[in-house]
Amino acid sequence: MKKSIGAKPIVFPTPVFIIGTYDKADKPNAMAVAWGGICCSDPVCISISLREATYTYANILQRNAFTISIPSEAYIKEADYFGIASGKIEDKFSSTCLTPVKSELVDAPYVKEFPFILECALLQSVKIGLHTLFMGQVKDVKVEEDVLTKEGYPDIEKIKPIIFNPANRTYYGVGKCLGNAFSIGKK
Amino acid sequence: MKKSIGAKPIVFPTPVFIIGTYDKADKPNAMAVAWGGICCSDPVCISISLREATYTYANILQRNAFTISIPSEAYIKEADYFGIASGKIEDKFSSTCLTPVKSELVDAPYVKEFPFILECALLQSVKIGLHTLFMGQVKDVKVEEDVLTKEGYPDIEKIKPIIFNPANRTYYGVGKCLGNAFSIGKK
Repeated sequence: MKKSIGAKPIVFPTPVFIIGTYDKADKPNAMAVAWGGICCSDPVCISISLREATYTYANILQRNAFTISIPSEAYIKEADYFGIASGKIEDKFSSTCLTPVKSELVDAPYVKEFPFILECALLQSVKIGLHTLFMGQVKDVKVEEDVLTKEGYPDIEKIKPIIFNPANRTYYGVGKCLGNAFSIGKK
Repeated sequence: MKKSIGAKPIVFPTPVFIIGTYDKADKPNAMAVAWGGICCSDPVCISISLREATYTYANILQRNAFTISIPSEAYIKEADYFGIASGKIEDKFSSTCLTPVKSELVDAPYVKEFPFILECALLQSVKIGLHTLFMGQVKDVKVEEDVLTKEGYPDIEKIKPIIFNPANRTYYGVGKCLGNAFSIGKK
């Protein structure tokens, strides 16, 4: 039997994306975002949604660019801090001792210590309500060599990305492999 | 050291959303989608991206509605099949012996056997490239009672949602709880 819980912003899973931007004074900033995902395969685009009150919101509009750095479980404290503190008040890279690296492709920094990076040029923004959706075209994906498989693709089991659970605001790791897509449902 | 792998549609995690729609003849259809996520908290909105070639694409535009049913690990074969077969040719509910339930709030069916359901009214669509982003306003969330906690919120550990890994097209389960968000990064 299903129970109605009302129109709540809950789905499973949601990601932990760390959004890298520069402010007017070229200070690098990092913010945690769980509302987002891939929105087009060709051109490769990704969307993230932000409240206008965030520091990152204005930064993206000023520079027309952002990066997404995906943290490993080992950096869960830093990732969570990026979602608590505001770049308006704090220098979040200094506070965490993480290293901002200027992208050569877009006008935004990424987090050196995180294993998986997407560099995005702002394609469009769509004001919805409390949140505005920013669509970025992915210019490149950069991956730490030690989390690549022999075949050269990123290994989720080595990356150890974090899952955000919006139902009770907790974090989870990735569990066991359950099978191959476009395959186990063929019967 | 980071290695460039080009502009590939890969992030971690991506979801397994089963999109429920009706076609012109009122036949219920279900399709698996991994490109999507929450895009606004107020009003609660969710985006999914589809290729125009899919059966679901036209169904959503005709009915201005869709549902998202989140399958448990136990239904991974059915979920994968929903991403392989096309509703143009097959009656996917009949093939899987799953039950379409007509939403009372929007003109679309959901999957009775899946534990977590969102009923969405189409708010807008944004043509990007190969994919078009459909933004739905969530009218209600319905959850199986046996996957709710005592406090009444959906329990990710009971729901057991599936994670899609686009890097090598595999499925994963959710792993261990890593900590509380907006908390463990406070130091």
